[in-house]
Amino acid sequence: MEEVVIKLSKKPKLKNPIFLEGLPGIGSVGKISGEYIKNSLKVVKFGTIISKHFPPQVFLREDGTVRLVDNELFYYKGKERDVLLLVGDYQGLTPEGQYEITDKLLGLLKGFGVKEIYTVGGYGVGRFVEKPRVFGAATNSKIVEKLKKYNVVFSREEPGGGIVGTIGLLVGLCTDYGMDGLCLMGETPGFYDDPIAAYSVLSVLVPYLNLDVNLEPLKKLSEDTLERLKQMPFEPRQGREPPLPTSEDLSYIG
Amino acid sequence: MEEVVIKLSKKPKLKNPIFLEGLPGIGSVGKISGEYIKNSLKVVKFGTIISKHFPPQVFLREDGTVRLVDNELFYYKGKERDVLLLVGDYQGLTPEGQYEITDKLLGLLKGFGVKEIYTVGGYGVGRFVEKPRVFGAATNSKIVEKLKKYNVVFSREEPGGGIVGTIGLLVGLCTDYGMDGLCLMGETPGFYDDPIAAYSVLSVLVPYLNLDVNLEPLKKLSEDTLERLKQMPFEPRQGREPPLPTSEDLSYIG
Amino acid sequence: MEEVVIKLSKKPKLKNPIFLEGLPGIGSVGKISGEYIKNSLKVVKFGTIISKHFPPQVFLREDGTVRLVDNELFYYKGKERDVLLLVGDYQGLTPEGQYEITDKLLGLLKGFGVKEIYTVGGYGVGRFVEKPRVFGAATNSKIVEKLKKYNVVFSREEPGGGIVGTIGLLVGLCTDYGMDGLCLMGETPGFYDDPIAAYSVLSVLVPYLNLDVNLEPLKKLSEDTLERLKQMPFEPRQGREPPLPTSEDLSYIG
Amino acid sequence: MEEVVIKLSKKPKLKNPIFLEGLPGIGSVGKISGEYIKNSLKVVKFGTIISKHFPPQVFLREDGTVRLVDNELFYYKGKERDVLLLVGDYQGLTPEGQYEITDKLLGLLKGFGVKEIYTVGGYGVGRFVEKPRVFGAATNSKIVEKLKKYNVVFSREEPGGGIVGTIGLLVGLCTDYGMDGLCLMGETPGFYDDPIAAYSVLSVLVPYLNLDVNLEPLKKLSEDTLERLKQMPFEPRQGREPPLPTSEDLSYIG
Repeated sequence: MEEVVIKLSKKPKLKNPIFLEGLPGIGSVGKISGEYIKNSLKVVKFGTIISKHFPPQVFLREDGTVRLVDNELFYYKGKERDVLLLVGDYQGLTPEGQYEITDKLLGLLKGFGVKEIYTVGGYGVGRFVEKPRVFGAATNSKIVEKLKKYNVVFSREEPGGGIVGTIGLLVGLCTDYGMDGLCLMGETPGFYDDPIAAYSVLSVLVPYLNLDVNLEPLKKLSEDTLERLKQMPFEPRQGREPPLPTSEDLSYIG
Repeated sequence: MEEVVIKLSKKPKLKNPIFLEGLPGIGSVGKISGEYIKNSLKVVKFGTIISKHFPPQVFLREDGTVRLVDNELFYYKGKERDVLLLVGDYQGLTPEGQYEITDKLLGLLKGFGVKEIYTVGGYGVGRFVEKPRVFGAATNSKIVEKLKKYNVVFSREEPGGGIVGTIGLLVGLCTDYGMDGLCLMGETPGFYDDPIAAYSVLSVLVPYLNLDVNLEPLKKLSEDTLERLKQMPFEPRQGREPPLPTSEDLSYIG
Repeated sequence: MEEVVIKLSKKPKLKNPIFLEGLPGIGSVGKISGEYIKNSLKVVKFGTIISKHFPPQVFLREDGTVRLVDNELFYYKGKERDVLLLVGDYQGLTPEGQYEITDKLLGLLKGFGVKEIYTVGGYGVGRFVEKPRVFGAATNSKIVEKLKKYNVVFSREEPGGGIVGTIGLLVGLCTDYGMDGLCLMGETPGFYDDPIAAYSVLSVLVPYLNLDVNLEPLKKLSEDTLERLKQMPFEPRQGREPPLPTSEDLSYIG
Repeated sequence: MEEVVIKLSKKPKLKNPIFLEGLPGIGSVGKISGEYIKNSLKVVKFGTIISKHFPPQVFLREDGTVRLVDNELFYYKGKERDVLLLVGDYQGLTPEGQYEITDKLLGLLKGFGVKEIYTVGGYGVGRFVEKPRVFGAATNSKIVEKLKKYNVVFSREEPGGGIVGTIGLLVGLCTDYGMDGLCLMGETPGFYDDPIAAYSVLSVLVPYLNLDVNLEPLKKLSEDTLERLKQMPFEPRQGREPPLPTSEDLSYIG
């Protein structure tokens, strides 16, 4: 079995496409963001990635049928340019697996003419954050300059330990494929699915990319979540998981 | 050394064969079921699977000779259609190993003309279950409909974390090989070898597939086990292992 | 880099050779036995096995020079038949590694015309053993019968969990290379290097194979060790390591 | 993706080059030493090593741009002979990874005509050391003799467990590539970045290789660090990390 298997149901012709990543990670910020974009745009599913670096696992659908753990590829035909979107159940389980999957994915994206990579995740700070800052990392300083207008923080100190996982690898490896990349991370406690951080990040990414995504429902959810967190009789801390909406619950949005 | 080595002593010609899997797992439900079918039908051993993804281990036979850890393939010539059966000592030790072994196995099965896959396991609930429900997962909704007549529960909530391991992978990957699949899981405490759950599952699978398997001895063992569990002075709980028959003890049955 | 690299300084012509294995393991019984045979016979080193499945480690020699972690191959020209001997620093670190190394080794041995494999190890029982029994496992029942004359115990119950590691794998895989194999295990507490168990095992293997090895020095060391253990003010138990000679200390013997 | 990817921006012609390694490890002795030499000599960066055996991680530069975790290759044109230098973020994460990376690197170095390998690291002793000894290990006894004049200790007993990691592997594998090697280890507590041990090691290596490196700034830092450690109200012990300069802080030196 190949390390990473990419199955395409069709090979769409795309106009100057960009790539967005929204996989699970810290605070589920990437997954919430990716699913929100998926549900907001008229996306078309055209690909599936399976890999022996994912867990050996299947999930049940509503109708009792199974689907194997995977990552899914969607495209969206935009006015000016098209969008490729990746969402999924898991990142690769091991360092080797994450390198293999990212490298294979970038090869595919290059074939579609992708020149720009955008990845989204959480920056776990282990404490409640009322107004999450958005941290950035990019492949060149021009992108850095542009994003500073959106109050994105580019700091060598934060995240201190570097950016770990697929959101970092995509941006770190994409230059070998002739692409530029930007990684945006929303500050998050990191111990529950956090729509507040996702809203912060998308509040930057959506206008920056001029995406046709209405952020009002996510803003509302973010505000409601914040309200509920404030009413809690305890300071939410690591290890205690307040009964917040999961990313599954968010699927009705948009 | 190849990742997975399949050694066939002969290549039987099979009539519209189905495939049954009965490997160790939660509550040994798969293993007990597989061994029971093996001992009930006039099966012929024709293949052995060894792999570096199994433990580096040998077992002793009664006569002091060794056999390497493996999975074993049997066939059974049925009236209407033939059966292929897989039983064994272990599943693959790692996620990668489970993918490799499952994928190689499915390639072999395709060569035998298998179009239907049936896998059996336990759904661990961590508490005593007097009348185990049987949960199902299938590759298409027609199979789901048929099984509902047998009171099989198809629920997105249970098992909540998806189906992990070879029983899930076989059903998740088989469609890539042009096959349909059904996974049946018996509710089980999960901390001892559980013939009660195995009986529940086979009470569905045997009539559904019209297998020539007499379930009376397993029913008797299931009832006896239940009786002994009820007489225990404590509520069996996770971590406490009552002196129940192991799957080895069951080999006299059938 | 290849998984397993076998470097031969020469390719000896061997007369009906047998293969002996003496690698580290439970109670260092295999290593003590292998080193004892190495030092007793006029062996010639002719090969080195290195592998990325060994630890990334070097050891210092007396003169300050380094040698990479390895396994070493020796041959001995016997009167009736020749002997190949394997000793070394480590077994493979992972299950996959142990399979790879064993499989590659068996391929080499086949090329030398080896038809018989003998492996030696410890059977850890976790308590002090005054007169260690010797347990056996073989590839066919003829060997089993012959060894019973030497009071070797062949029992499905012991070792209960099967034989794990290279001593098992060699015997489990050798039949695929047209060889027969015998594994001998000496009962040992398992928490210190145990010359008593090594002596028990070699007391069977040396006469059985008619090896030109004088067991008196090892017998003396075994008796001395036993005496010292008996004089200890406590019952030696798991976790407590009495100051016994290590396998390094044994190198002067023979 | 290849196991190890070496990207060269140019292929310098080198005059009888030697190779120096300075990667992170115990007490960061190798990294501090490597970075110090890098900053002291007029080195030119010409290569980058990335690998799926490194963590899937990117770091931010001062300007907000990212760089993937890597090892970096520099060359220095010396008067008599040239120098190749390797520094980096990490060693390989697994044993297999360390073998793969080391082996591939040695192949590259052979292509540049390297005949001598010098590796630097810490020997962790778990306690405060005022005057760290320097321990050595070499591929042949001539090197051992030469280094004894520099008070380098070559002892089979220390380090007792052998030399683990890339500093050992490079010296252990280099003879297969027709090279000689020397590993120097400075005694270090092992639980903080230790410029004292680095100074000790470079006090041997720099004069031995006649490198054009001024050791005064490192000597000063070493003395200052020692002074601060002595003024601490506690005996520094394992697990307690005094607020010492990190290797990042050292980058201004030289």
